[in-house]
Amino acid sequence: MKKLKIGIIGVGRLGYEHACNIQYRIPTTELVAVCDRNFDKAAKVADELGISRDHVYSSGKDLCNDPEVEAVAIVTNTDSHVEMIEYAYAAGKHVFCEKPLAETVEKCKKAEKIVASRPDLIFQLGFMRRYDYSYEVAKKKIDNGDIGDIILVRCYSQDPISIIKGTLEYAPRSGGQFIDMSIHDIDLIRWLTKSEPAKLWAIGGCYEFKQYKDWDDGDNVSCLMQMKNDIMAFFFAGRAAAHGSAVETEIVGTRGTLRIASVPTDSLVEVMSKHGVCRECYQDFLTRWHGAYIKEMEVFTDHVLNNTPANPGVLDGTASTSIAFKCKESFLKNTLLTME
Amino acid sequence: MKKLKIGIIGVGRLGYEHACNIQYRIPTTELVAVCDRNFDKAAKVADELGISRDHVYSSGKDLCNDPEVEAVAIVTNTDSHVEMIEYAYAAGKHVFCEKPLAETVEKCKKAEKIVASRPDLIFQLGFMRRYDYSYEVAKKKIDNGDIGDIILVRCYSQDPISIIKGTLEYAPRSGGQFIDMSIHDIDLIRWLTKSEPAKLWAIGGCYEFKQYKDWDDGDNVSCLMQMKNDIMAFFFAGRAAAHGSAVETEIVGTRGTLRIASVPTDSLVEVMSKHGVCRECYQDFLTRWHGAYIKEMEVFTDHVLNNTPANPGVLDGTASTSIAFKCKESFLKNTLLTME
Amino acid sequence: MKKLKIGIIGVGRLGYEHACNIQYRIPTTELVAVCDRNFDKAAKVADELGISRDHVYSSGKDLCNDPEVEAVAIVTNTDSHVEMIEYAYAAGKHVFCEKPLAETVEKCKKAEKIVASRPDLIFQLGFMRRYDYSYEVAKKKIDNGDIGDIILVRCYSQDPISIIKGTLEYAPRSGGQFIDMSIHDIDLIRWLTKSEPAKLWAIGGCYEFKQYKDWDDGDNVSCLMQMKNDIMAFFFAGRAAAHGSAVETEIVGTRGTLRIASVPTDSLVEVMSKHGVCRECYQDFLTRWHGAYIKEMEVFTDHVLNNTPANPGVLDGTASTSIAFKCKESFLKNTLLTME
Amino acid sequence: MKKLKIGIIGVGRLGYEHACNIQYRIPTTELVAVCDRNFDKAAKVADELGISRDHVYSSGKDLCNDPEVEAVAIVTNTDSHVEMIEYAYAAGKHVFCEKPLAETVEKCKKAEKIVASRPDLIFQLGFMRRYDYSYEVAKKKIDNGDIGDIILVRCYSQDPISIIKGTLEYAPRSGGQFIDMSIHDIDLIRWLTKSEPAKLWAIGGCYEFKQYKDWDDGDNVSCLMQMKNDIMAFFFAGRAAAHGSAVETEIVGTRGTLRIASVPTDSLVEVMSKHGVCRECYQDFLTRWHGAYIKEMEVFTDHVLNNTPANPGVLDGTASTSIAFKCKESFLKNTLLTME
Repeated sequence: MKKLKIGIIGVGRLGYEHACNIQYRIPTTELVAVCDRNFDKAAKVADELGISRDHVYSSGKDLCNDPEVEAVAIVTNTDSHVEMIEYAYAAGKHVFCEKPLAETVEKCKKAEKIVASRPDLIFQLGFMRRYDYSYEVAKKKIDNGDIGDIILVRCYSQDPISIIKGTLEYAPRSGGQFIDMSIHDIDLIRWLTKSEPAKLWAIGGCYEFKQYKDWDDGDNVSCLMQMKNDIMAFFFAGRAAAHGSAVETEIVGTRGTLRIASVPTDSLVEVMSKHGVCRECYQDFLTRWHGAYIKEMEVFTDHVLNNTPANPGVLDGTASTSIAFKCKESFLKNTLLTME
Repeated sequence: MKKLKIGIIGVGRLGYEHACNIQYRIPTTELVAVCDRNFDKAAKVADELGISRDHVYSSGKDLCNDPEVEAVAIVTNTDSHVEMIEYAYAAGKHVFCEKPLAETVEKCKKAEKIVASRPDLIFQLGFMRRYDYSYEVAKKKIDNGDIGDIILVRCYSQDPISIIKGTLEYAPRSGGQFIDMSIHDIDLIRWLTKSEPAKLWAIGGCYEFKQYKDWDDGDNVSCLMQMKNDIMAFFFAGRAAAHGSAVETEIVGTRGTLRIASVPTDSLVEVMSKHGVCRECYQDFLTRWHGAYIKEMEVFTDHVLNNTPANPGVLDGTASTSIAFKCKESFLKNTLLTME
Repeated sequence: MKKLKIGIIGVGRLGYEHACNIQYRIPTTELVAVCDRNFDKAAKVADELGISRDHVYSSGKDLCNDPEVEAVAIVTNTDSHVEMIEYAYAAGKHVFCEKPLAETVEKCKKAEKIVASRPDLIFQLGFMRRYDYSYEVAKKKIDNGDIGDIILVRCYSQDPISIIKGTLEYAPRSGGQFIDMSIHDIDLIRWLTKSEPAKLWAIGGCYEFKQYKDWDDGDNVSCLMQMKNDIMAFFFAGRAAAHGSAVETEIVGTRGTLRIASVPTDSLVEVMSKHGVCRECYQDFLTRWHGAYIKEMEVFTDHVLNNTPANPGVLDGTASTSIAFKCKESFLKNTLLTME
Repeated sequence: MKKLKIGIIGVGRLGYEHACNIQYRIPTTELVAVCDRNFDKAAKVADELGISRDHVYSSGKDLCNDPEVEAVAIVTNTDSHVEMIEYAYAAGKHVFCEKPLAETVEKCKKAEKIVASRPDLIFQLGFMRRYDYSYEVAKKKIDNGDIGDIILVRCYSQDPISIIKGTLEYAPRSGGQFIDMSIHDIDLIRWLTKSEPAKLWAIGGCYEFKQYKDWDDGDNVSCLMQMKNDIMAFFFAGRAAAHGSAVETEIVGTRGTLRIASVPTDSLVEVMSKHGVCRECYQDFLTRWHGAYIKEMEVFTDHVLNNTPANPGVLDGTASTSIAFKCKESFLKNTLLTME
């Protein structure tokens, strides 16, 4: 069986997860090269996953130029995504790139151009939620007409308080709630409604962690959007949920409603104790999205092997980033904004 | 509107609840007399509920002979139930009697004779679960054929650990798990299956509270029954559930299954905290069965006012008591027993 | 025991419910007079509830002047609420008035003046959700600090599709989603956040029933509010939920989250069938709020008997009405509005 | 990295699943040989999974003797398990064998002897439920003392009505409910209670499918067991659940209770429709146990690579089979039986 030979750039926490998936959990892929700007980190991962030191790099460009590599998975910091895409495309390699596409809309547009220049190469953006099993089940029901026309999409994304230390450390360079976190919900809203926001108003504040103020951000924010097709969309993003990593999505339709993960748990265990009847929750996004990270890479690989267009694509990256920035602008100005 | 004039004998915790229901919560009843062997207790309740001191008694017989009284609610200790029924019937009064009917099968049979002697009087036994809204919903579905034929009935009855002090104090004179607690489930099983046990085997032990051993009892017991119509029935009774007053019933049918109160809660509140997503539970049987206690008295009153036969009746009392004793015998001998 | 003598004006569906509660389900109240502009309807209810024909009226003013009446329950159409309050206050009677206070803000302010003129009289507005058991449980937890500071309140109010015929008939004279339906959520938001909206933006549309357009309304609407204390609030109101009468409220706090009625059911029965594991839902607001309607009247009566101030009060009526109109204005203009 | 080279014997539905897991989903294993008594079937699977035709067999003995093979996974019909174990052990190969160990207790004892003869080889039996994530979570809590001492274990195993056609076809040669289906629950009970049944009584009948009578079986059966350490255990097995593949386990302890999979669903989607709020259920055991099948093979491999003893072992096979036969005997004689 043909296996797609993938090189990975960036092996931090999520990059390492992708590397393992590529090497071990997907029948149609194999990992052939590893890059990290910290060479020792790359080498360690390569050793563990059985990649020869000949294919370990600290330069993304070098990895892209490795003739063994057929496709590149970019899991670096956001601000180097577009540069890496450029290297990969220059070398004629397919690209799977983590979200968000870039840290500015300008860079997103640059990525658009790069991608447009080589329609023969497959490009897929890492909005993995689209590939989570529960979201797939819901999407199928929607597309099947089970809930009629969509009226409202509601999205919650909350990190758990149990990881707040790491959250706060990363916060200053994360891009903020809208660009870092809500962008997932923005993508879901676009995907589910098949539309773009016409108007939006974002609000929020520092309810517990005042330091977010210094970063022109809030620890909890929300936004109401009116989509061009009149669907209503509301999202909420928080940094310190008491119960766990809580990503919930609800789609209210004219004939029914779907709710995804209102109880965010990864086991089927109910605990009956003095606290009542309890379901314990995910504390960790990698646990929550384990299957989705595998599935999106499988799908990307299928597209490469079959030469079919992937989604989400580069335009989804620009769109979600533009909207996230508009949300941030609305939040900072505290005013209703209209998208062009 | 005609109101049924009821005298109550026994105003302990449950008797007081019935007294309030009769006086305040049921349009068709009024409380006209109060008796307790502790006269002061009776007087206090009478004062509170606006009953004249002329109708306060320490003798059940006297209350039964009060000409104002049309029907008698017996909420005394089990060992005086039959005596009180005798007084009431001698005075030509309708009777609502709390469960269990009596503390021996012989006394149950005596009660049967008394009741049979006056078919013009209405007699109803206080197995209130039959009148709980959720059980009514389930019974209607079963009778409607929604779940096909019944295969298995599973019944759990657990008192909460939060009331263990009172549970242990009452235990020596309670009659034991089978006669005091499981008798409710025995009634449910008979009611739901419309059949009687052919064979049964009861087991259990002292898992936490060794003192039950001294009372020839267990703190947790269970029993498997084969009904005469081949339906399987399993019940479990415990005295110290961590989460609350947990009475759960499941009816597995050939076309569907019903579960009643798998999460025993009286509010619609979910609490998301470090314990996960939790539903808090009843700690108190009066909270759990509040509506059922009202409903059964309303139904009793309707039967009296319309002169229609009530259920559960005196025969249900004998049957459930006989079965409970058989369970205890099976438990003590640790052997399978056949009901005649 | 002292019983408060209440006269009721308006015995439609909800008025009849209140009448029965007053007469039968609350120990401290009795119904002494009944009024309906349809005299025959009033007479029929009076007969049923055992009220003498001497106390049956077709004029609210006459009922208010009945010397037997100590307090008046106003359950008429919204547009006569203030007139009835005026009669009651002129006659020196305490007032329980159904929501909304009035159909215009001007009339609300008139009611304020009337109520202010007689501080010795008790006035309570019928936002019954505050007295629902689950809301009481939640409020107690919030006030106890269990969830820390409030970040977001989310409120859903949906009527079921099963009653759409009646919904559509009533719609043209209902005042619209914001004034008729969302006003409950507006009251909840004010009550839970202890604050007032600073800014709000309401949107919506006709997703299924185009006729709402003719009434300058939507069949589904939503609104995002920024409260003066920076809490975020979002509400959604729909007219045709597939599953039932679905009123859900969520309070996200810095230390925990509470959700009320995410599964809107009145029984503890789970149904396992080919549709999966299902909880059947309320189809009827009277079932959902049965206990709350009793509790609010009990509380009102306590306030009258103890001469203590009631809540929600007349100012809550003006506030919620003003906000509802602001929502409607925002919806019609499709713009962000600032409350003075 | 060292990969364990596994040959598989039997590539029916479950065998194919194991083959894919070995080849694709477990980093430390590779599939090197495929056997099926239907050679074409073996060849087709080998081709698909990239195994050379040189390593395709129709004889289990031949596969065992393939020098490439280090360990053998036996997924044949039950009646050839022991024969295959014998071949594998004769060839000095480690063995993973599907449950049940054998179709008679005698054969189980023969397997015991074979396994005992080569303590240097690792043997693991395929009771995969022990390796399901939810069961692992529960077991950890139990071992941690979170629920105190175990009082009762309740196990349900139900196949869905949606697959009844296949169920009925397979039934005559399945060994019956106790040996084929309840054996999983018997293993769970032994594993969870760390004890063996002292006494047991099994009942049941043909509630829907009368043909089970011809096979000396019931379509639904249950059993109450008293364990040697006094823990109570109850299991129920059914062949036609309306909602899905429903395997539920409950462990009631003196300090808390755990319930596993009371709602047997693989997605986090709630569907709100006219049926209420529903969770759709598994229809397929491979979906339910997908992760467990992978995990048990990973664990087996770890034991082989580290030369540590595996569980469940061959003695667990004999024990569960003996108990299952005792259950069947109890069912057929309708009497209480004592285990030696």
